[in-house]
Amino acid sequence: MAKVLTPQDEDFPRWYQDVVNKAELAENGPVKGQQVIRPTGFALWERMQSRMDERIKATGTDNASFPLLIPQSYIQREANHVEGFAPELWTVTHAGGRELDEPVVIRPTSETVIGEYMAKWVQSYRDLPLLLNQWCNVMRYEMRTRLFLRSSEFLWQEGHTAHNSYEDAHAFTLRILHDVYADFMENDLAMPVLRGLKTAAERFAGALNTFTCEAMMRDAKALQMGTSHELGQNFAKAFDIQYLGADGKQHHCWTTSWGTSTRMVGGLIMAHGDDRGLRVPPKLAPVQAYVMTVKDGEGVGEAAAALHTELSGAGIRSRLDNRSDMAFGRRAVDAELKGYPVRVEIGPRDLAAGKAVVVRRIEGSKTPVPLESVSKVVAEALEADQRSLYEEALRFRRERTTDVATVAEAVEASATGFARLPWDACGTEGEAKAAESAVTVRCLQRADGTVPDSDDEKDLVAIMGRSY
Amino acid sequence: MAKVLTPQDEDFPRWYQDVVNKAELAENGPVKGQQVIRPTGFALWERMQSRMDERIKATGTDNASFPLLIPQSYIQREANHVEGFAPELWTVTHAGGRELDEPVVIRPTSETVIGEYMAKWVQSYRDLPLLLNQWCNVMRYEMRTRLFLRSSEFLWQEGHTAHNSYEDAHAFTLRILHDVYADFMENDLAMPVLRGLKTAAERFAGALNTFTCEAMMRDAKALQMGTSHELGQNFAKAFDIQYLGADGKQHHCWTTSWGTSTRMVGGLIMAHGDDRGLRVPPKLAPVQAYVMTVKDGEGVGEAAAALHTELSGAGIRSRLDNRSDMAFGRRAVDAELKGYPVRVEIGPRDLAAGKAVVVRRIEGSKTPVPLESVSKVVAEALEADQRSLYEEALRFRRERTTDVATVAEAVEASATGFARLPWDACGTEGEAKAAESAVTVRCLQRADGTVPDSDDEKDLVAIMGRSY
Repeated sequence: MAKVLTPQDEDFPRWYQDVVNKAELAENGPVKGQQVIRPTGFALWERMQSRMDERIKATGTDNASFPLLIPQSYIQREANHVEGFAPELWTVTHAGGRELDEPVVIRPTSETVIGEYMAKWVQSYRDLPLLLNQWCNVMRYEMRTRLFLRSSEFLWQEGHTAHNSYEDAHAFTLRILHDVYADFMENDLAMPVLRGLKTAAERFAGALNTFTCEAMMRDAKALQMGTSHELGQNFAKAFDIQYLGADGKQHHCWTTSWGTSTRMVGGLIMAHGDDRGLRVPPKLAPVQAYVMTVKDGEGVGEAAAALHTELSGAGIRSRLDNRSDMAFGRRAVDAELKGYPVRVEIGPRDLAAGKAVVVRRIEGSKTPVPLESVSKVVAEALEADQRSLYEEALRFRRERTTDVATVAEAVEASATGFARLPWDACGTEGEAKAAESAVTVRCLQRADGTVPDSDDEKDLVAIMGRSY
Repeated sequence: MAKVLTPQDEDFPRWYQDVVNKAELAENGPVKGQQVIRPTGFALWERMQSRMDERIKATGTDNASFPLLIPQSYIQREANHVEGFAPELWTVTHAGGRELDEPVVIRPTSETVIGEYMAKWVQSYRDLPLLLNQWCNVMRYEMRTRLFLRSSEFLWQEGHTAHNSYEDAHAFTLRILHDVYADFMENDLAMPVLRGLKTAAERFAGALNTFTCEAMMRDAKALQMGTSHELGQNFAKAFDIQYLGADGKQHHCWTTSWGTSTRMVGGLIMAHGDDRGLRVPPKLAPVQAYVMTVKDGEGVGEAAAALHTELSGAGIRSRLDNRSDMAFGRRAVDAELKGYPVRVEIGPRDLAAGKAVVVRRIEGSKTPVPLESVSKVVAEALEADQRSLYEEALRFRRERTTDVATVAEAVEASATGFARLPWDACGTEGEAKAAESAVTVRCLQRADGTVPDSDDEKDLVAIMGRSY
C-alpha cells in the first residue's frame, strides 16, 4: 500500500493534519478558526456525547439550554472571570439592521448567564443541589488554531451545579472528574488519564480549584481532556445565588462547573492513531465491523449482506460496503484511515472456501474465518482490542514518564515525555522558569497518584510536560 | 384544586404563558428574544430530537456540524435568499478586542455555508446523493417574541441534500415531509398534520417549492410544524455545486433543505394542553409514569420504590416522587401541570388494601388497581391514551374545518377554524385580501387531501386560517 500519510516520526503535526483531512474528519470553516465537522468526525463526537450523557444523567444532572448571547455586563461581574475571558470574546453589535443598545457577546462559557438564572430558581435548601448541564457551541477568539484541538468555535458540554456546602460541592466536582470524565475516557476512549489538580497559574478564571484529566499523545505531549472546577462562593456572590437554610438564614451557594469538548476527538486521534490512520476503540466506534466485498462474483454480494445482517443482529455496529465497482485497494485504504476496528472482507475465492477474512485494525492481523464463526470471532476481537488499545496507551505513557529532582531535569525529560517532580522542588517560580521552555505543570498529584483536595497539601508531585 | 392557570377559553395566549411558566418549561433570556429552556421543557425537546434523529438516519442522512458564523458575502450570493434574510441578521463586528475585516453574521439557516462545502465535496455522480443534517442553534431577529413559538434564537435540525436530478431531489423532499416529519408528528406527538404546498408568498427565500406540515392548535389557529424545501438549482448555481455526470459532462446539482425546531414544543403544548396544564403523549413523554407517595406510613416508601422499579423493568419511563415532607396536593398539581401521562399514587390506606391509584392525565380517570396489576394497567393506559390523544386532536380539527366558496367566507370561517377554499376562487389576489384580516393560506392540497407536486396543478384547494 502506498503511504497516504506523513509518518508520525517524521512530522507529527503534519501526520495529524493528514489524518484529519484524508479520513474526512473536519475542515476549516470560512471564518477564521471555525471548523466544519464532517460526518465521519461528527459520528465520533455523537457517540462521545451519548456515552457521556448517560453518565452525566446518572449523577442526577438534567440537561437544559441557555442562550448563545450574553450581555457584556454579566461577564464583568466576577473579577477574575472577566480578566480571563475578555481578550477572547466575539461581540455582536448589530441586529435587525440596527445597532444594539448594549453590545452582547457570544458565550465563551456560561457560568455568568446560568448564575443569573440559578439565583432565580434557588430559594430554599430544598432546591439544592441544582444540577444542570448543556450541550452547545461556544466561541473564544484564537490566534493560532488547529482542527478539534484549538478552534474559535467548538462544541462541548458544560455542567453547572449549586450546592449547600463546600463539602457537597467539592465531592460533586470530584464525582464528575472520576465517575463521568475519567471513567468515560478510560473505558470508552481506551485512554488512560492522569487525574490531578491544576496549579494556580492554570486554574479556570474565577475558580478555587480546577481538577483535570490529562492524557499523553503519541508524540509524548499532554492533552487536557476535561476539567472540573470548584467555584467556591465566587459566582454565587457575583450573581447573588442564595438560599434560605434549614436554620432560617440566607446563605450563598457553593457552585461548580465542568466541561469536555470536541477537543476529545483530537485527543482520540493523537492517542491511538498510527501511520495508517485512526484506530478507533471498539466501544466508541460508530462502525465496529466494516463488511466489504473484495470484488464481484456469484453470491458475493449476498454473502456480504448476510454477514452484515448477522453482525447487526448480534448487536455489533456493522456497515456494508458492496461498491464492487470501486477498486478494493482504495476502499481498504479508506477503511484503514477511518480506523474501523474490524473489517470483514469477502470475495469469490473466500466464498468458495466458505470463509471471510477478518482484518483487525488494532492488532493488525488478517485471519480467514469460516462464515459461521465470523460473528463470534468479531465480537471477541472487539472486546480484546478495546483492552489492548488501553494497555498499549498505558504502557506508552509509563515508558515515557520519568522521576526527576530539579526543574532543569523536568524540562529535559519533557522533551520525550512527562516528568514527575516534587512540587516543593518546583513551586510557582520553577513553574514560570519551565514555561520559558514551553513546559508546564499538567497537574499536581499526591505521591501515590491520587488527587489532592487543594494545593495546600504537603508532598505533592508536579506532573510536567509539553502540551497542546 | 385551585385554578393555577388562566382558562383557555378566557385568554388562550395567557393560558400558554401560564403553562410555560408554571410547568417550568422555559423563560426569557437576558437578551431580547432569547430563551432559557428549563429541564422539563428541554427533556421534551431531547425526546423529539432522538425520535426524529432515528428517522432522519433511516433515510441515509448523516449528521455533521457547520460553523455558527457566516461571512456576509455568502448570504448575498442568492438573490431571493438575501432579500428574505437580510432584515433578520445578527452581526458580529469585533473579536479578540479588534474589529473584524469583514463583518460576519450568525447563521439564520445554513444553505449558504453548506452550499460552499458541498461544492468541494461533490465531484462526480458517484458522490450523489449527498445527504447531510445538523442539530444546532440559529438566530433571526424578531420584534415580537413568544417562548418556543417565535424567538430570536432557537434550536433546530436543518437537513441539506444534493441530488443528480430534479426527480430525485423532489422525491427526497417529499420523503422527508412524509416519512420523517409527518410520521413523527402523527405517531409520536399524536398531532394530526395537514401536508401541503406553500404558495409563492409563503415559500422559503430561494426555494422552488416549500412543502409543509400544518397543525391546528386548541384555539383553532394553525402552527407550521416543519417545512421541506425543493431548492431547484438556485443554490447549486450560486455556490457552484457541480458534478461530472456518467455522460462525461458537468451538471449543476439539485438541492433540498428541510427543518423543524423547538417551535414543535410550543405546538405540543397548544395542541394537547388543557386547563390543568400540559398533556404529553405517552410515546414522547420523558416521564410516562410518575409514582408518588401520598403521605408517609409504614412500608409506603418501599412500596412506591418497588412499583417504580417494576415499571422501569417493564420498559416504562418511570420517576419516583417520595417527597412525603412536601404537601401531596402541591405535588399532584405540579404533576398535572407537567402532563405526565400516568400517575401511580400510593398511601397508607391504599397499601393496606394492597392497591395503588392509577390516575390517567389524558382521559382524566382515577382507578384503584391491585399492586400486582399496576404495571400491566399502566402499559395498557399508555397505549390507549397515545391513540385517544391523536383522535381527539383529529376530531377537534375536523369539527373546525369548513368548506367555503369565497375569500370573504374563508376569512369568516377562519375566526373559528380552518377554511377550505378552491385555489381558483382565491389566487394571489384573494390571498393578499385575506392577509388584511390576518388570514393566510396555510397550504395547497389536491381535492383528495394529497400533496401537489407544484402550484401549476389544477383544482387545488387552499387551506386557510389564522396562524402563529
